[in-house]
Amino acid sequence: MNVKILIVLAFFATNCPGFAQTDPPAPANYLGSDARPASSNAAGQQYPKVDGQQRAEFRLQAPTAQRVQVDIGAHKYDLARDDKGLWAGVTPPLVAGFHYYALVVDGVAMADPASESFFGVSKMMSGLEVPSPGEDFYDLKAVPHGEVREHWYYSNTNTAWRRCFVYTPPGYDETAATRYPVVYLQHGAGEDERGWSTQGRVNFILDNLIAAGRARPMLVVMDNGGGSALFAGNGRGVAGLMGGGIATNRGGTGFSGTNAPRRGGPGLFGGAAGRFADTLIHEIIPMIDATYRTIPDREHRALAGLSMGGMQTRMIGMSHLETFSELGIFSGGTLGELTATNSPLANPAEFNRLVKVAFISYGSVEGGAKSLAAYHEALVSAGITNLTCYISPGTAHEWQSWRRSFYQFAPLLFQNP
Amino acid sequence: MNVKILIVLAFFATNCPGFAQTDPPAPANYLGSDARPASSNAAGQQYPKVDGQQRAEFRLQAPTAQRVQVDIGAHKYDLARDDKGLWAGVTPPLVAGFHYYALVVDGVAMADPASESFFGVSKMMSGLEVPSPGEDFYDLKAVPHGEVREHWYYSNTNTAWRRCFVYTPPGYDETAATRYPVVYLQHGAGEDERGWSTQGRVNFILDNLIAAGRARPMLVVMDNGGGSALFAGNGRGVAGLMGGGIATNRGGTGFSGTNAPRRGGPGLFGGAAGRFADTLIHEIIPMIDATYRTIPDREHRALAGLSMGGMQTRMIGMSHLETFSELGIFSGGTLGELTATNSPLANPAEFNRLVKVAFISYGSVEGGAKSLAAYHEALVSAGITNLTCYISPGTAHEWQSWRRSFYQFAPLLFQNP
Repeated sequence: MNVKILIVLAFFATNCPGFAQTDPPAPANYLGSDARPASSNAAGQQYPKVDGQQRAEFRLQAPTAQRVQVDIGAHKYDLARDDKGLWAGVTPPLVAGFHYYALVVDGVAMADPASESFFGVSKMMSGLEVPSPGEDFYDLKAVPHGEVREHWYYSNTNTAWRRCFVYTPPGYDETAATRYPVVYLQHGAGEDERGWSTQGRVNFILDNLIAAGRARPMLVVMDNGGGSALFAGNGRGVAGLMGGGIATNRGGTGFSGTNAPRRGGPGLFGGAAGRFADTLIHEIIPMIDATYRTIPDREHRALAGLSMGGMQTRMIGMSHLETFSELGIFSGGTLGELTATNSPLANPAEFNRLVKVAFISYGSVEGGAKSLAAYHEALVSAGITNLTCYISPGTAHEWQSWRRSFYQFAPLLFQNP
Repeated sequence: MNVKILIVLAFFATNCPGFAQTDPPAPANYLGSDARPASSNAAGQQYPKVDGQQRAEFRLQAPTAQRVQVDIGAHKYDLARDDKGLWAGVTPPLVAGFHYYALVVDGVAMADPASESFFGVSKMMSGLEVPSPGEDFYDLKAVPHGEVREHWYYSNTNTAWRRCFVYTPPGYDETAATRYPVVYLQHGAGEDERGWSTQGRVNFILDNLIAAGRARPMLVVMDNGGGSALFAGNGRGVAGLMGGGIATNRGGTGFSGTNAPRRGGPGLFGGAAGRFADTLIHEIIPMIDATYRTIPDREHRALAGLSMGGMQTRMIGMSHLETFSELGIFSGGTLGELTATNSPLANPAEFNRLVKVAFISYGSVEGGAKSLAAYHEALVSAGITNLTCYISPGTAHEWQSWRRSFYQFAPLLFQNP
């Protein structure tokens, strides 16, 4: 590298577009000409925009505000005000995928009116979709599309109406004699039954896999596993969740399942511990088998989930191998220790006979990723044969990890029932 | 009324819970003991609450904000700050039903993190559901429930993937030989294909009507009629829309259908005038007839909509009576003048033969309500026999008017095809 290039780099290092840390400069078109409105924006909204370097520019008209920040990717960035009261700023390059974010106006974190909203961290958050170069497995493509159905049913154990979303694969309505396997797919704490089909785009992922002949047509049932209110009212910002990994899913307030709203569900780990297990085993699965054309046996039934939903997969799945034959845990721990009391892992031959697919994944930036290879090795050494582990490159406790996890997991399902 | 009661009333008139207009008093539990968290709140959120007098209390923790207001029902109310930075305030009694609202923090109108979000006024707004005493036709009840299906399809005229929502009635999957009539139901400007099943609760309204034997089981197709971006970027608050009625749906910015987001649709009245008519007639209807078990003739096909969707119903429906036999216009004008050139109204006998149901409605507070009786009378005098008019008591250009309108409209449909 010669001196001229070094000088140019030094220029950019001090003058490149970014957030003002002291006096606000006048906002300008910071981004490259390849910048486009984010696909996650509300209809017709130009900002936020994302450019080819995966930098995002946020704008907000707020002439009477004292300070405007954007809280995204575990950081808060100050926006700069121009003389007309327009606040603007450009982030450093962001990790590709879906990011929750909030605008912080004079200390109050709120959703950006220009963005679509997504239920996360127990409230309606803004979301920013950062395109991932060369990675389009979750895009809406020119392939046959399944449907996502909003389905209401009454739960006796909860004495409440509950809502689930059910993905039916392309052709479901046209082939009245065909029956399908089912994966029960759970959200994380602070999210709900909407997460997998909105933030997760699981319907597009499966549409694409099925069109490519890489996954078997299947139903996906997305129900409410509780924990939606985990973060309600504790005032924690986005950064607290996104940087902390699943450890932040413990404790918190409002997790008891009381004061559940009309569309909410029961908690899992609070006062209502174990209720979701009962609901799933004794109500949801029989309801789904009676309502949809499923293949209603354990060989054609999988359970998976992210974060809290991964922990539920271990807790419920490992103790109900009469009901499930395939398990997926995304950023939610492992199958448990080999030495754990009463674990099915204690009998590897029997475990191999019962569990056709066991899948564990993490984002590479998550703490759990570090020990995953050793865990895998320990189970293989003990004679466990059907375990697949996956690390999502460069991602944290976030939806891009879970989209990729499902994309790796789905092709394994129901191949040798 | 004796003096003692007058004194008590005077006490309440000066001291009753309300918004501070000058110095902020310390917030307290202003509402009666019958106050409950709004059903529109996010999971686990206690505020806003609504009491039996239909007053709503809003709260926001914002210690460093200078001013916090709530913008609801065409008014902005100041919240009062306590010494810990909690802002709170109680509205006067609100009209029952669904209200968009925003919190205004130091002049910036944003969604309340404690509320579910709803797409309206071209952005994600907060919503407050105010219970309506004795009026439960749109509630989730213990009756059989249909499904709302998210359906994606490719449009050649728009060269884009589009999304619609399709309500299928209870029993649709179980009775494979049954075919159903269809109502195409359009949203208003600044809203989109989600409006009728979220804000409008049309699925619950139909579930309840069908269970009571008061409406024929039917499909409802909710597509994107354009206009979603009408209010994008114009900075107008909620009050500007809610107080102004449909006149505010004219003009505006961002209405050209360009820069449409991934899930958006084309405009109707801008540069893409008429494109939705083509999309509906030549793409959506054939796609629906090919995908669902419809009765694919004009006698079993209705078109209806609210506000801009009502105008579209007149423009598209009246010029396509070969396609539709029943029309519903909610807060969106009339069928047009009797003297209009080329109007089917010019031949009342033929109009009566073709149009089995023509339905026009307004909220009583809307300007259009005043002249509706005279319009009805003029058409009856001219020999039009199948016109039904309805005025929703005490409501404005808002969802409660349109829920009630659909509730009145649906039982008329497909009764004498």
